[in-house]
Amino acid sequence: MTEAPLVLALCGGVGGAKLALGLYRLLGSGLTLVVNTGDDFTHLGLRVCPDLDTVTYTLAGRVNPDTGWGRADETGQFMAALAELGGEDWFFLGDRDLALHVERTRRLAAGESLSAVTAAVAAAYGITARVLPMSDRPVATQVETDAGTLAFQHYFVRERCQPRVRGLHYQGAAQAAPHPDLLAALADPMLGAIVLCPSNPWLSIDPLLALPGVRAALAAAPAPVIAVSPIVGGQAIKGPTAKIMAELGLEVSARTIADHYRDFLDCLLLDHSDAALAADLPGSRVAATVMRSEADKVALARAVLEAASDCRGGKRGRGKNEVSAT
Amino acid sequence: MTEAPLVLALCGGVGGAKLALGLYRLLGSGLTLVVNTGDDFTHLGLRVCPDLDTVTYTLAGRVNPDTGWGRADETGQFMAALAELGGEDWFFLGDRDLALHVERTRRLAAGESLSAVTAAVAAAYGITARVLPMSDRPVATQVETDAGTLAFQHYFVRERCQPRVRGLHYQGAAQAAPHPDLLAALADPMLGAIVLCPSNPWLSIDPLLALPGVRAALAAAPAPVIAVSPIVGGQAIKGPTAKIMAELGLEVSARTIADHYRDFLDCLLLDHSDAALAADLPGSRVAATVMRSEADKVALARAVLEAASDCRGGKRGRGKNEVSAT
Repeated sequence: MTEAPLVLALCGGVGGAKLALGLYRLLGSGLTLVVNTGDDFTHLGLRVCPDLDTVTYTLAGRVNPDTGWGRADETGQFMAALAELGGEDWFFLGDRDLALHVERTRRLAAGESLSAVTAAVAAAYGITARVLPMSDRPVATQVETDAGTLAFQHYFVRERCQPRVRGLHYQGAAQAAPHPDLLAALADPMLGAIVLCPSNPWLSIDPLLALPGVRAALAAAPAPVIAVSPIVGGQAIKGPTAKIMAELGLEVSARTIADHYRDFLDCLLLDHSDAALAADLPGSRVAATVMRSEADKVALARAVLEAASDCRGGKRGRGKNEVSAT
Repeated sequence: MTEAPLVLALCGGVGGAKLALGLYRLLGSGLTLVVNTGDDFTHLGLRVCPDLDTVTYTLAGRVNPDTGWGRADETGQFMAALAELGGEDWFFLGDRDLALHVERTRRLAAGESLSAVTAAVAAAYGITARVLPMSDRPVATQVETDAGTLAFQHYFVRERCQPRVRGLHYQGAAQAAPHPDLLAALADPMLGAIVLCPSNPWLSIDPLLALPGVRAALAAAPAPVIAVSPIVGGQAIKGPTAKIMAELGLEVSARTIADHYRDFLDCLLLDHSDAALAADLPGSRVAATVMRSEADKVALARAVLEAASDCRGGKRGRGKNEVSAT
């Protein structure tokens, strides 16, 4: 057990990692990131953990600034040689990135837990925040589509999110104990805030909420729960969030995000462009949620922490369900 | 079972692969190479087969011309990233080369045999000769040294052949059935020649001879057995052959090679610089055995095939033990 975190943030990959970086710049070792592992898969015999790696590379300053995932200055010799051998080349693994997958796979096979391997990698990269997989047990997001049920990376990368989504489920989640430090932190009266990064709720946050006890622990948490809407002006900044919401028959609006988290959310941060929605969403507040520069990330992190601070005073006297679609 | 080969050649890595290339240029699909797998090991969770890969890359025209092993135009991004993670970096795996190890490991784990994987790789590279691991079962060469017993790659790469060799053994060899096509070819009356490439007898050929039945099948083979001495003028062209011979108390001479193979050898090819030894070694002949250019390799291959042709006429009437140290 490590020192209790000041702030616990739940996140997925690219979009979530941007706010994670802003929080890290403010909080350093006071930040614990609990990362979705529903995207993880075994590919070419290697254990690949896309969201953990995106978060790790982002905090380490090693992420590819153009894509938001993978490593900067990456090369593709391995993939070219694999294609020449007739191997599966639909999922890009860069030469440098590959070292992480090979080393992780080796350590997992030797009996180390995913959280231990993740911590060792973060330490090797000099990251002082804690990067924690949501569980040491595997969870595999499955996407039910009009082209059948697809493993997450098959849907996301191989099929480029083209099939129409009819539903999602998180294979193994019901049997996967959340990392004990996640539950301990959620129950900790000293925790300052719980942040839901602007990740895709269905693909990145729901796998986490599907772990036994997490949703109830969020609802019961003494710390305020602050989410940043990944929907801005009726669109997603990046990725298939808006497309999936539409396919699931949901209104593509920050209102839907508030509703999705209604049983535990204390405050939803909306973008300035959605200020008109704020009146309908008690407990919401507006901020600049579109993060382009590092300064944007730090500014949004600051707004999140201010919201948490404002919530903390009133929280004990109130019930949850403060923020919900009306 | 494929078509019967015209020529079967037994070989190890770099030195043997040079003659293998010469034979391939002359024989094409008529050549079957049976390759030592005693150097194979599992490293970083990947199955690495150095001699098979050297032979494959050589025949495919993809070998690094400076080292004789690994791939041409190779890069080391993976290794640099692995070192950054604190991973084991004493054994270099290039970015392109890695594709072969990852793909092989995946296919072996899926239940394919090493010979099937090796054939698929050779086919992907357009190699028409047959490249055959000596066995589909693992054999692990162990080097007994004054620094203790070392796994082969620990001796060869990590310790750079520095420890003094006291003996060798081939873990698993007694339980490893030779590939059935090897035994079938050795017994085949239509086989034109059996060639022992100028590989290190103790490190590269003995693992093959340690497989049950191989040594007896060589002695009983209808085809003539031709070896090229890896010792030229009392020295090894490359690698630790001479050092190991001296440490084992053996004379560093082509005479010792003849003696080592005495129970099955029909003809030993000596370098011109060892012509003086020929008189003492009945059945030996001289040739230019030092291969620098591709023309050298083809010329030596031609000399080997001529020797085999000359042996074939007389062989059925003679016993083995034609060539031995006197």
